[in-house]
Amino acid sequence: MTDLNVHPDLSLEFRSSVSMFATGVAIVSNTLDDAQVYGMTINSLTSICLTPPTLMISLKEGVMLDQVLKTRQFGVSILSKNQKDVSNNYSRKEKDAAYEKHFIVREKIPTLQDCLSWFECEVVKVDQYEDHTLVFGEVKACGVDNSAISPLLFFSSNYHFDPRPLN
Amino acid sequence: MTDLNVHPDLSLEFRSSVSMFATGVAIVSNTLDDAQVYGMTINSLTSICLTPPTLMISLKEGVMLDQVLKTRQFGVSILSKNQKDVSNNYSRKEKDAAYEKHFIVREKIPTLQDCLSWFECEVVKVDQYEDHTLVFGEVKACGVDNSAISPLLFFSSNYHFDPRPLN
Repeated sequence: MTDLNVHPDLSLEFRSSVSMFATGVAIVSNTLDDAQVYGMTINSLTSICLTPPTLMISLKEGVMLDQVLKTRQFGVSILSKNQKDVSNNYSRKEKDAAYEKHFIVREKIPTLQDCLSWFECEVVKVDQYEDHTLVFGEVKACGVDNSAISPLLFFSSNYHFDPRPLN
Repeated sequence: MTDLNVHPDLSLEFRSSVSMFATGVAIVSNTLDDAQVYGMTINSLTSICLTPPTLMISLKEGVMLDQVLKTRQFGVSILSKNQKDVSNNYSRKEKDAAYEKHFIVREKIPTLQDCLSWFECEVVKVDQYEDHTLVFGEVKACGVDNSAISPLLFFSSNYHFDPRPLN
């Protein structure tokens, strides 16, 4: 459904306006029969509730969504400033398979070996909104790998790093 | 529903792990009969889709949720590094009413006069997940106020600012 009442410039204006909301950068990961790790870069990761611990990701049609719906599970790895190349690789349509060696299975689902923190999620709810599928994952295992490294940030359509604490 | 299978330490671990995902800071705003501006600080703001432009916020029970459901609309203002006091004010249970003078009505809904960007949203979908209500708002008006000021960031349970561009 396309809302014909949307001002023609509104979508463009929305894109700029929403880019002012800074986010971290994360990799959603999945595997089918342990044969190959599928990864996808996202900068929209929503913490839905603490009890039970639940994350929401939003996916468009594609291989990752198919995998997540088929396996009913997914991993999430939050990137540090040293992982811009990982982010770029998994943003591309043609991924470099060499990056697969950076994933390890901590409990059940592959997540990145070096990251700020990681999550293994089981799909508990799926919802559709226009062209996006909202996937709710209950976190079955998670952990902080590195809390001392600066996060990779996305703000104003560009990568950023090294934010300073504000006391 | 409390999942009794959740490891007792998992909620704590989740809290630390998810705090590694950096976010901006925003104020949700609303008014009833233009009498008083209600504001609430959030750091979870999800861009759901571009066409039509749609944001999702997640609210617990309280005055803000009641107002949003009653008026079927809400505003969102994204904060700059100079607005830590605004964030603190609208995080508190007892808000200082003096901050209401910082809101203006651009089209229909009050948003902050000085912010990085602002949005006026009409509620198009409401969903419940455990103790949180997910509110989907179609953006009817929005704009960038300041793109040159550093954003206020929340990372590792602390405010941050001045992230550097990473080329």
